[in-house]
Amino acid sequence: MQHTTVTFLGPAASFSHQAAVEFFGESAELLPCVSFTDAFTAVQQGEADYAIIPCENSTNGSVVQTLDLLADPNNLYEDVEVCGVHYLTVHHCLLARKGVFSSQRDYGSVAKLYTHPQAWGQCEGFLGRYFRGIERQDVSSTSKAGEIVSKTKTEHSAAIASRFAAEFHGLDVLEENIEDKTDNTTRFLVLRNRNSDLTTPRPFGDLDDRREQWASTPTARKTLISFMVRQDSPGALAEALLIFKSHGMNLTSINSRPSQNNNWQYVFLVECQTANGLGDQGMDMEVLSHLQGVTETCRHLGTWSE
Amino acid sequence: MQHTTVTFLGPAASFSHQAAVEFFGESAELLPCVSFTDAFTAVQQGEADYAIIPCENSTNGSVVQTLDLLADPNNLYEDVEVCGVHYLTVHHCLLARKGVFSSQRDYGSVAKLYTHPQAWGQCEGFLGRYFRGIERQDVSSTSKAGEIVSKTKTEHSAAIASRFAAEFHGLDVLEENIEDKTDNTTRFLVLRNRNSDLTTPRPFGDLDDRREQWASTPTARKTLISFMVRQDSPGALAEALLIFKSHGMNLTSINSRPSQNNNWQYVFLVECQTANGLGDQGMDMEVLSHLQGVTETCRHLGTWSE
Repeated sequence: MQHTTVTFLGPAASFSHQAAVEFFGESAELLPCVSFTDAFTAVQQGEADYAIIPCENSTNGSVVQTLDLLADPNNLYEDVEVCGVHYLTVHHCLLARKGVFSSQRDYGSVAKLYTHPQAWGQCEGFLGRYFRGIERQDVSSTSKAGEIVSKTKTEHSAAIASRFAAEFHGLDVLEENIEDKTDNTTRFLVLRNRNSDLTTPRPFGDLDDRREQWASTPTARKTLISFMVRQDSPGALAEALLIFKSHGMNLTSINSRPSQNNNWQYVFLVECQTANGLGDQGMDMEVLSHLQGVTETCRHLGTWSE
Repeated sequence: MQHTTVTFLGPAASFSHQAAVEFFGESAELLPCVSFTDAFTAVQQGEADYAIIPCENSTNGSVVQTLDLLADPNNLYEDVEVCGVHYLTVHHCLLARKGVFSSQRDYGSVAKLYTHPQAWGQCEGFLGRYFRGIERQDVSSTSKAGEIVSKTKTEHSAAIASRFAAEFHGLDVLEENIEDKTDNTTRFLVLRNRNSDLTTPRPFGDLDDRREQWASTPTARKTLISFMVRQDSPGALAEALLIFKSHGMNLTSINSRPSQNNNWQYVFLVECQTANGLGDQGMDMEVLSHLQGVTETCRHLGTWSE
């Protein structure tokens, strides 16, 4: 049996890695990639069956690297489509090398903390209570912070990273859920190549059990469409958005990114769903065909159940 | 005569500083601030008459720090309004301490380059031709890079920064316009306090000459409005956008930012203008009063000539 290959935004034990394991299960072959561009390229060129990358965080908003690759003004990734999403709640833990700290909250001897710059801000309450004045070292990812601490034997150091990273790097979890905001959530997109025979638009893999569980709860059918309006036609944006409404599609989000070809021309990325959560591909194609009449370019970027 | 005070996003000789000089002229008192939040706070609390901050770049898109402060979900800056915009084309120069390099393109002895990380990527062509393999030092701003080079006497170093920074720090300009993209432009917003008696909604200061010059060219009257739709009302976004259309207002841009109160609820920031570039405050207020019927919150964030 052929393995499903999935590339995720690395390094190993990143939040994208965790999302990949949760979405695809343990049987898929998971391969880290070093950049958002590499993830899109791997899917476009058939080097991976799927990619999973962050697209939005409930606190920080959209991930512009992902939006820019979806906007794709030079048609580099025209076969890449979104086929699923996954939500991951961001929990941080305080991690240390196994056995270094005998009891919980025995933090007096911690000489140095490691994590990604964003995580300091997300754990201010906890850090203010227990680690005032302790040296902080920025690292390129929380997972990397865990790796550094797992290999540092000359000092009493600790990392802020996920429980997933703790297990991956063999670290003790000294404290869980140290984040200020307990519901900080990242939304990931699952990408496939629309011409692939090996993948399906609904990549549930060995998640059939969960799929049955989901089947009992209503899911929304969402569609992502990109378009660019003509710059000499100032009413065109409202006209394009009206087309969604006239087809019974509710807009659930709008993002805009620079077109990179003309200053102050934008690619709009619109997510929509039908009012009753149902709908079919025929309707998507009808919306697209009407959009073509009022836009310079438009593209169907995928449909999935959420 | 009382000076007009203007705070700009520092440090001194930043692109925001240059924008402030170009917009307000030399007679205004210009004060650097260290963050976007400080600029908004200074205007809200009346510590500065105006602030000028970047809001969008033609290549990189929106500046999210500015959008988040405009979205203002906790009503911290409810008296801050946009009263003008300024466009600045981003040109980079190669700068060195006065007299260190006798002739142009005598770059062989440069041992180290300093600039902001973004500027390396914006000058790749030039750097690839003349500075392959030369040590690069990241600095927090291009202006700071200029300052460091002006004070470094022990090595032959050069900075990538603006001509404005060269003049400010007393540096030689070895080469001008070394950027790859000649039309990379940043749009700045001018902010004022809507309750201020000392400022006017049209702060042209000693730019009256230019104002006259502008008067001969048609200008658009733009309005910025923010709103948040109800989360339980999926058609509300399209309904809100329709209100602009039904009042003859064309949407020129839409941005969304997390509301920070509920996950996946957004504050939308919509820029619009009337089809003929004219319009009045009565019309803005009518749009706003209709928006109130379909949104959870909405706010008029300013009107200006562009």
